[in-house]
Amino acid sequence: MTHPLFTKHEATLDQALAAIETRGYWSPFAEMPSPKVYGETAAANGEAAFKAHLGKTFELDQPSTGETVGDERSPFGIGLGIKYPKSDPDALIRAASEAQSAWRAAGPKAWVGVSLEILSRLNRASFEIAQSVMHTTGQASMMAFQAGGPHAQDRGLEAVVYAWDQMRRIPSEAHWEKPQGKNPPLAMQKRFTIVPRGTGLVLGCCTFPTWNGYPGLFADLATGNAVIVKPHPGAILPLAITVRIAREVLRDAGFDPNVVTLLATAPNDGPLVQELAVRPEIKLIDFTGSTQNGTWLERNAHQAQVYTEKAGVNQIVIDSVDDLKAAARNIAFSLALYSGQMCTAPQNIYVPREGIRTADGHVSFDDVAKALAVSVEKLTSDPARAVELTGAIQNDGVVNRVAQARELGAVLLDSQTLAHPAFPEARVHTPLMLKLDARADEASFIKEWFGPISFVVATDSTAQSLELAGSIAQEHGALTFAVYSTDDAVIEAAYDAAIRGGVALSINLTGGVFVNQTAAYSDFHGTGANPAANAALSDAAYVANRFRVVQSRVHVAPKAATAEASQTA
Amino acid sequence: MTHPLFTKHEATLDQALAAIETRGYWSPFAEMPSPKVYGETAAANGEAAFKAHLGKTFELDQPSTGETVGDERSPFGIGLGIKYPKSDPDALIRAASEAQSAWRAAGPKAWVGVSLEILSRLNRASFEIAQSVMHTTGQASMMAFQAGGPHAQDRGLEAVVYAWDQMRRIPSEAHWEKPQGKNPPLAMQKRFTIVPRGTGLVLGCCTFPTWNGYPGLFADLATGNAVIVKPHPGAILPLAITVRIAREVLRDAGFDPNVVTLLATAPNDGPLVQELAVRPEIKLIDFTGSTQNGTWLERNAHQAQVYTEKAGVNQIVIDSVDDLKAAARNIAFSLALYSGQMCTAPQNIYVPREGIRTADGHVSFDDVAKALAVSVEKLTSDPARAVELTGAIQNDGVVNRVAQARELGAVLLDSQTLAHPAFPEARVHTPLMLKLDARADEASFIKEWFGPISFVVATDSTAQSLELAGSIAQEHGALTFAVYSTDDAVIEAAYDAAIRGGVALSINLTGGVFVNQTAAYSDFHGTGANPAANAALSDAAYVANRFRVVQSRVHVAPKAATAEASQTA
Repeated sequence: MTHPLFTKHEATLDQALAAIETRGYWSPFAEMPSPKVYGETAAANGEAAFKAHLGKTFELDQPSTGETVGDERSPFGIGLGIKYPKSDPDALIRAASEAQSAWRAAGPKAWVGVSLEILSRLNRASFEIAQSVMHTTGQASMMAFQAGGPHAQDRGLEAVVYAWDQMRRIPSEAHWEKPQGKNPPLAMQKRFTIVPRGTGLVLGCCTFPTWNGYPGLFADLATGNAVIVKPHPGAILPLAITVRIAREVLRDAGFDPNVVTLLATAPNDGPLVQELAVRPEIKLIDFTGSTQNGTWLERNAHQAQVYTEKAGVNQIVIDSVDDLKAAARNIAFSLALYSGQMCTAPQNIYVPREGIRTADGHVSFDDVAKALAVSVEKLTSDPARAVELTGAIQNDGVVNRVAQARELGAVLLDSQTLAHPAFPEARVHTPLMLKLDARADEASFIKEWFGPISFVVATDSTAQSLELAGSIAQEHGALTFAVYSTDDAVIEAAYDAAIRGGVALSINLTGGVFVNQTAAYSDFHGTGANPAANAALSDAAYVANRFRVVQSRVHVAPKAATAEASQTA
Repeated sequence: MTHPLFTKHEATLDQALAAIETRGYWSPFAEMPSPKVYGETAAANGEAAFKAHLGKTFELDQPSTGETVGDERSPFGIGLGIKYPKSDPDALIRAASEAQSAWRAAGPKAWVGVSLEILSRLNRASFEIAQSVMHTTGQASMMAFQAGGPHAQDRGLEAVVYAWDQMRRIPSEAHWEKPQGKNPPLAMQKRFTIVPRGTGLVLGCCTFPTWNGYPGLFADLATGNAVIVKPHPGAILPLAITVRIAREVLRDAGFDPNVVTLLATAPNDGPLVQELAVRPEIKLIDFTGSTQNGTWLERNAHQAQVYTEKAGVNQIVIDSVDDLKAAARNIAFSLALYSGQMCTAPQNIYVPREGIRTADGHVSFDDVAKALAVSVEKLTSDPARAVELTGAIQNDGVVNRVAQARELGAVLLDSQTLAHPAFPEARVHTPLMLKLDARADEASFIKEWFGPISFVVATDSTAQSLELAGSIAQEHGALTFAVYSTDDAVIEAAYDAAIRGGVALSINLTGGVFVNQTAAYSDFHGTGANPAANAALSDAAYVANRFRVVQSRVHVAPKAATAEASQTA
């Protein structure tokens, strides 16, 4: 049973299958906002589409109470004033159940084809989505385009191809024939049907609503489930646009659009989410956010398969370098990018208190710390250039955390507020860097300080640095880990620490790749092996539990006996 | 990195990979206890090996307190008197952690090779294991051989091949090269390492210690985990022999045998198990047993991936048949086999109260019920033949349940005690069959009555039968479901009910295949889609969460640029 949308996108799917097998570079979505690729008017049209949302009620023809909800505020200070249809969770669950039966019956090729068509249309809406990501998360415009558009679409497609890679292994039919000695064989015809779990719930975050939301959304959809998308109250628009496009594709393909619905909520929606998350109809939950909320889901939503991404402590071990400036530039970029508001941004940078070896000779701890601080300062000294890197701070909680962190130790580089040339009301804060000590300050640096906050930590030795990195990742979680060393034995020891901590390792990054960036189809995001995430994006484990297989079997004439009989005849 | 044991068994592994892809018939283990296959003296040697255990302390050179434990009683009434070394769970956890590091580092081919070698040696011990299964579970000797030996080994191998099928998809290395327009591409070398979760805990049951224990044991081992095997206190010996063989293979292969250890316990070991199950070192739990204990694990062992098989209500819908006698014979065999002490044995048999169509004309409800009862009676009337089918009752709880069930409705066929010709003290009880009504007796038949207890339930129609079957499976769980109908539309409706209930469907079984039997590599056992089990044996979902992937990445020279440079040169 094929589907026209499957056929339409089959070549892309085949390339994606090859990509996850070799894990080399590949993407069908252009990451540069080039007019040649996206069209000469695409950027202007996208911005116009975004502006058309401002001060309006977002139209979505799904079950609604008739009321509206919505209180997003742009970190760049512009007025948004967007309202969304308010929906009763009960009504969305009912609508999903009703939509589910025809969707389920359509089968894997329809699920995959529809998912790929949605991604293709999302790609065309990348500029509108980029603006909506920028003005809800605070990401600068280039990052909002890349991470909110093509890179998010890549992670969505990655989930689809993993789902397909698993589903295609289940034959739809089988002939089973068991020899019975001198008697005729037992023969059965078997039929296997892939059955979705039911309704999925995707709980979005306020920093990467699409990048962190798409994997769960598309993993659910591609395996035949219905999905209720509940954005963070601070970043609804990017997922509202996404849901609207998904519903258009579903309707165009002849399905009930309530396969995908939006649950827009007001701030402090915790009780509503908790009530919804334990509903028996909700079989899958994908969550990105705080450890507190993620752990609550893991411990209470027993009826569902729960995938969580929570807090972590990302770490860099500096042992020795050829070119300290190149290393410092690379690390500084990772610290400044989106003001450290990435789940992958480094926080703890361990440097031996005796200093390190470089190609230019020995460099003291203080000079390493200074080199890092100077590099960050350079990146952030010119406000006009800086804001294109740092973006704005998503919420006041992050600003307050910076103030709180300042008390933890000696300030190496203080956080500055910057005036954004284009958005005078933008909330822009440059990175705060502190010097800490591995012996005295462990209580401070074993926890996540989400935002533009990092610590250069003096250790007794690289061995202690690696020991800290491995054990903190294991106990407190981590999504990224980097090592700088010119010594192969140290790099091997770092890989051992990475294995112990269940975290991916980046080695000697000095060029155009940064520790907080991962490439879909090649780099796993998270491992599922430490408390920062219970799953990786994406792998078989991320998709295989989103569907089940139901089979039948019935006796048929044995083929062997038939062959024998016809030979005899 | 290959391993001699991987190479030794690679051809078998390749055949197993082909089998799970086509899901046709295949097995490397002979299911008939034939001297030609197993050797002329194998049966006698196996029985001697079993008898040598009686009245002794089972030798196992693992961490032990020096005390012994063990109180198994043969359902056939012979004295066992076997004691096992008592172990402190803490000591086993420590030993597993110590054994883990070299085992982890050996990599997937070593894990798979060692697992396959263990299965191969278990196969050679099939007669000894058969005797031990018989005298702990109460299975008759042929079933104890087949289900306890080769069929259990098949389910173990199936888990290994699923694990390998997933692990082999992760490349050990990758070259990633991203074009940068006119600039040289970014190139990175990546390394991927499969990392086990840690220590697994396998909680055995008292009816199928090996068949239900091997999938979890081998899924854990084949993905590099250490395993603590905790048998049911009533059926320790089969898993003790298994653990001993596993440890021999590990030691022969140069690994610390504490990768696999046995935790033998006394009856009422609940508190000990609960304490162990929530230990942070335990990352995987495989459980077969009561809904109460399984649900406790699902709700409390948050630190672990928990796989459970629990209670269910297996059902048969009789709509119409060509040959009532053939259908009744097939069903009767399923009811009598091991006295219904199978998680797959049918319990509720729905028949329209208006009767059914057959090739010989209309047959009333009462006559259908009678045909079923007569068939069971025939199978169980001659004690000498009957006991080879029914075996013995595992424990007094089952006997008491039969007495309790007798009060639920009109007795169609009463349970009899039989004298076993070879074992005068054997606890043999034939099936109890009752007539119930779909309208009046639902409270009785929506729960599992584990043991030789079945209900012929009068329904308003086949439509009601199917509605009950689907909804009871969905709400109360089911591992098997069968339909008898000559009407294709009814069979399709039954398949819809199967999908709704998340349960496999057997259609018109009248020959040598029985609803309570599944074939490894072809039939999934359980689906994970209803409360009877949260996983299927075996599929990708059963293995994919037992390992994680840790990676590294480092810049290397681009291949494209190198090629260009060498062309220029």
